Amino acid sequence: MSKKNLKAVDLKRVKLISGLLAQKNKLVRKEVIPYQWQALNDELPDTEPSHAIENFRIAAGRSEGEFHGMVFQDSDVAKWLEAVAYQLTVNPDPELEKRADEVIDLIGEAQQDDGYLNTYFIVKEPEMKWKNLAECHELYCAGHLIEAAVAYYKATGKDKLLKIMQKNADLIDSIFGLEADKLKGYPGHQEIELALIKLFNVTGEERYRDLAKYFIDQRGQEPFYFEKEWEERGKVNHWPDFKQNTEREYYQAHAPVREQNAAAGHAVRALYMYSGMADTARVSGDQSLIEACRRLWSNTTKKQMYITGGTGSTVHGEAFTIDYDLPNDTAYTETCAAVALVFFAQRMLHLEKKGEYADVMERALYNGALSGMSEDGRRFFYVNPLEVKPEVAKNRNDHRHVKTVRQKWFGCACCPPNLARLLTSIGSYIYSQNEEELYVNLYSDSQAKVEFGGQEIEIIQNTNYPWEEEVEIELKAEQAAEFTLALRIPGWCRKAALQLNGKNINITEHLEDGYLRLKRSWQNDKLKLILKMPVEKVYANPEIKEDLNKAALQRGPIVYTFEEVDNGKNLAALTFAREAKLKAEFEKDLLGGVTTIKTRAKKVDSLGWEGDLYSTQKPGSREVEVKAVPYYSWNNRGEGEMAVWLNSN
Amino acid sequence: MSKKNLKAVDLKRVKLISGLLAQKNKLVRKEVIPYQWQALNDELPDTEPSHAIENFRIAAGRSEGEFHGMVFQDSDVAKWLEAVAYQLTVNPDPELEKRADEVIDLIGEAQQDDGYLNTYFIVKEPEMKWKNLAECHELYCAGHLIEAAVAYYKATGKDKLLKIMQKNADLIDSIFGLEADKLKGYPGHQEIELALIKLFNVTGEERYRDLAKYFIDQRGQEPFYFEKEWEERGKVNHWPDFKQNTEREYYQAHAPVREQNAAAGHAVRALYMYSGMADTARVSGDQSLIEACRRLWSNTTKKQMYITGGTGSTVHGEAFTIDYDLPNDTAYTETCAAVALVFFAQRMLHLEKKGEYADVMERALYNGALSGMSEDGRRFFYVNPLEVKPEVAKNRNDHRHVKTVRQKWFGCACCPPNLARLLTSIGSYIYSQNEEELYVNLYSDSQAKVEFGGQEIEIIQNTNYPWEEEVEIELKAEQAAEFTLALRIPGWCRKAALQLNGKNINITEHLEDGYLRLKRSWQNDKLKLILKMPVEKVYANPEIKEDLNKAALQRGPIVYTFEEVDNGKNLAALTFAREAKLKAEFEKDLLGGVTTIKTRAKKVDSLGWEGDLYSTQKPGSREVEVKAVPYYSWNNRGEGEMAVWLNSN
Repeated sequence: MSKKNLKAVDLKRVKLISGLLAQKNKLVRKEVIPYQWQALNDELPDTEPSHAIENFRIAAGRSEGEFHGMVFQDSDVAKWLEAVAYQLTVNPDPELEKRADEVIDLIGEAQQDDGYLNTYFIVKEPEMKWKNLAECHELYCAGHLIEAAVAYYKATGKDKLLKIMQKNADLIDSIFGLEADKLKGYPGHQEIELALIKLFNVTGEERYRDLAKYFIDQRGQEPFYFEKEWEERGKVNHWPDFKQNTEREYYQAHAPVREQNAAAGHAVRALYMYSGMADTARVSGDQSLIEACRRLWSNTTKKQMYITGGTGSTVHGEAFTIDYDLPNDTAYTETCAAVALVFFAQRMLHLEKKGEYADVMERALYNGALSGMSEDGRRFFYVNPLEVKPEVAKNRNDHRHVKTVRQKWFGCACCPPNLARLLTSIGSYIYSQNEEELYVNLYSDSQAKVEFGGQEIEIIQNTNYPWEEEVEIELKAEQAAEFTLALRIPGWCRKAALQLNGKNINITEHLEDGYLRLKRSWQNDKLKLILKMPVEKVYANPEIKEDLNKAALQRGPIVYTFEEVDNGKNLAALTFAREAKLKAEFEKDLLGGVTTIKTRAKKVDSLGWEGDLYSTQKPGSREVEVKAVPYYSWNNRGEGEMAVWLNSN
Repeated sequence: MSKKNLKAVDLKRVKLISGLLAQKNKLVRKEVIPYQWQALNDELPDTEPSHAIENFRIAAGRSEGEFHGMVFQDSDVAKWLEAVAYQLTVNPDPELEKRADEVIDLIGEAQQDDGYLNTYFIVKEPEMKWKNLAECHELYCAGHLIEAAVAYYKATGKDKLLKIMQKNADLIDSIFGLEADKLKGYPGHQEIELALIKLFNVTGEERYRDLAKYFIDQRGQEPFYFEKEWEERGKVNHWPDFKQNTEREYYQAHAPVREQNAAAGHAVRALYMYSGMADTARVSGDQSLIEACRRLWSNTTKKQMYITGGTGSTVHGEAFTIDYDLPNDTAYTETCAAVALVFFAQRMLHLEKKGEYADVMERALYNGALSGMSEDGRRFFYVNPLEVKPEVAKNRNDHRHVKTVRQKWFGCACCPPNLARLLTSIGSYIYSQNEEELYVNLYSDSQAKVEFGGQEIEIIQNTNYPWEEEVEIELKAEQAAEFTLALRIPGWCRKAALQLNGKNINITEHLEDGYLRLKRSWQNDKLKLILKMPVEKVYANPEIKEDLNKAALQRGPIVYTFEEVDNGKNLAALTFAREAKLKAEFEKDLLGGVTTIKTRAKKVDSLGWEGDLYSTQKPGSREVEVKAVPYYSWNNRGEGEMAVWLNSN
């Protein structure tokens, strides 16, 4: 790892004060984590029991019974623990910490003597350990528990879970590898790769880094491991309907990762893998891996990403498809994929300091990820389409994955806890630094402490971003410290201004790869950054057939959408009026406080058409006022149509 | 049946001379029927063997072996025989007739003593007869064989097959019915209903009519027969993946047919049933059934029909969905459904004399049905979408039913022979008559003979319709006969003119329900009908979201489409230029001779977008010439994009 590489300023050092991210962070703390705890303990009414904690109790011998839930149910507990750890990092809560410690004790009791730890296989199919990597996600669950262990150790200094997971990782290391007596396998669902790098970072044990690298390098080698293990176990599947044993691309195993050029297969698996690749590339300086990361980043974000930062254009395999195939109504765009794109983006940024990574990170965070959770933090979207017509979504089988209202919980509950762990740790995405540079990636009302040359510097952001364009940044230090302060000038921002201690700074002169870099000696300084955020119409690449002759509204990092509750039925009949102004207004009582956009549109009229399907008479239209709300906030006011893209000519 | 009801002027009395229908008719005669014969006899290279004739040979004891093919494989032989019968009706062919006679002998030998006739159950599962009506289509196959028998009898006067099928129908009549000792079942796939009415018409045996009525009335009664029979046979399915046992709507069994208001479920089954209902209503005068037919007609054609006359908006269940749900790229629009809509339309016309029925008949025939067959008569579409982008169709699972080139044959080969039997009998759709009226429903260069009051009248159409707007009609008779000649003024025609023996006739004065009615004494008369057919832009009901702000081109009955071969890639980027002329030109060497349409369009430009997905810079556009070809003729010049609807603002 080069000294020049950035790393995140630790969560512990960043405190969110107010604004949208603070609000969502608090919502997770106050609602999601307790709610999730209830879910894990089967205490939610009208919801299928999760059984996740009970599985651990049975594995630990505290309880008798059968395993229930998904084969990867353990990961729900892991993600809860990880979110709790992040929360404890910034908001001590002895009661919650006690509860977490108890869960960790339970996990420890469930672990077997050799380090093995997976309740499904301990309780239900001990003879099948490591025999169905493709479907059964032992390595995926281990990865999540490792992430939780690292987070909990960093949050509390307690290393019990860390030790448990080191023991588990050591077992995995003894089982997988290129040596003759080891299995040549790799995870069906990537996750452990990036977790192992975290474990390496916190323990310094190189074998974890090497194991991550092994998993990354082994994927895509022939013979295809998942087909081989499937044959070896008698062609038996865990999921009877599962037919992906021979579909290499679904698992990103269609080629060695260094030879992959386009994002392919299951989107979350892909993006976790790319994240692990970027991590591994960073700690190893491996050039061919860096190149592969760049290519996969470029294809993902420049050919296969929705304007919301969502990815995965099809429910079939929850997967990427082909370049420019971005249907709005049948999009899969799983919340987890947007979360995973945030992970990938941050890692790319830490691999090379370019604003485009932070731009995508911000886009996915504020739009495709945040949309996964309701305003009250109690309902969740797994799938985040960009266009919904409820009667179509409910009646067409090819829309069956699209839910028209957020759900309480899911049988496969990956998304809510994933969003929870992102939002509880969101403070760690704001700043990145190395020994000489401090990068401000996200703007959010907050206080942080960083260190340069042994000198602690306080950095305070005073802003109502993303609703307002002004960000005041104050630096305070007892003694001056020299470093480069790099302020991100977002890609969406076409006009920025900066004052340093009251004096205008020439932006262009200091701009480099999307960041405005100021190298000087800092002590007590004030900056005022203006990121002009007019409402803009955004157009899509004309190769995206679904968005041709359409435009979406964006203001700052926020992508907007139109809802039936504001605009009536048949949103597809709306066309932006040509010269109409786009008026932004902050409505504090709406949807938790959001800036809305009003403008005028032509609406095609259905009057007189009742008895006809086709006519040579062109339908009439009338001008109407329309209103857009942030995409992430849709579907908090009942079921109805929604559309991000409106016709525009 | 009221004397006023029309019936088709018999195929035997109508001879196609030239023009599009004659050309397609000849293609079936020269290519499809021989090709199909090869298929039935497993003589096609690179095609899965049909085994259909061999199944009959095994059932007849002439051959040893196993049954192969679909459980309803017999229907392929039936449809071939039916098409052959129609062909022999107008084009005697002793060799072909001999071959058909041999097939009929074989069928007779396969029939069991009690009249039972279905090779699957005779050869493979004799103990399962009549136990899986939902999936196994015994009644469907019987229906097709009955239709073949009636056609062959009418064509040749030979009643061998007719007797075979009467015996079979009598067996069915002894097994199904409301009497205590009978099964209360009905067909999983409707077809026998309309066949039984044909059998009634030709034999005069009322029990066949009553059996048809029983099947129609019994559907939708509780308990749900298909669920009951499924339980009774131990919940075993013929098709392992089949899950429709409890899906009433798929079978149009969600309500008694008289209570059904909207077209629902599997489109071909539905339309066959509606056809059978209309037949039964006509021969019985049953008012509540007539009302149900009208409602289902109205919903089908005014809420759920593509501009091509295609129906069935989803591959899931090959089914109708909901009103105005008409996606162009994922449409199922099976060729058989367009053929079935022609059947339904003709029957509605014979139930009540309204031009709208003939309008839809013509629309489905010239567009959604004809598109099922390639120009050379050797390749077929099962699915007929209105928009295709090959890379999307090949890479998206929700488009997996869409083929980007016509196929040689299908495992489930329902469509090609269905189109064959329609096109060989198309002469019988041209005229309808009762004792007082002669209806001209379709215009096509042809000669026919009709009878009024014992007087034979020759009626000659001299026209190049649908490419040209002029139709000369000559009537010739030895003695004058008084009757009403009703000339259809198509719904698409906004300006018609008629001369009778050189004198102008006032159209409006004589127009009634879409037909221009002239009651007089006819002997040797000449009419010249002009049906103005300018190219027109057609707009869709604004409730159809996929067609909003779009237009399609239509000229006369022909719906047009744009292909990549003429217009380059990315057809979605085209917008009709506002004031551009729509120029029609007959190109005799193109696609067997078609009128094409040229106009100008704006094409959004992708230049400069390679590296970006989204931009605030509106894409530029340039004006280009575009060319449209008849929809039915698409995909005869290689694989490429296709789109019926272009943007229009």
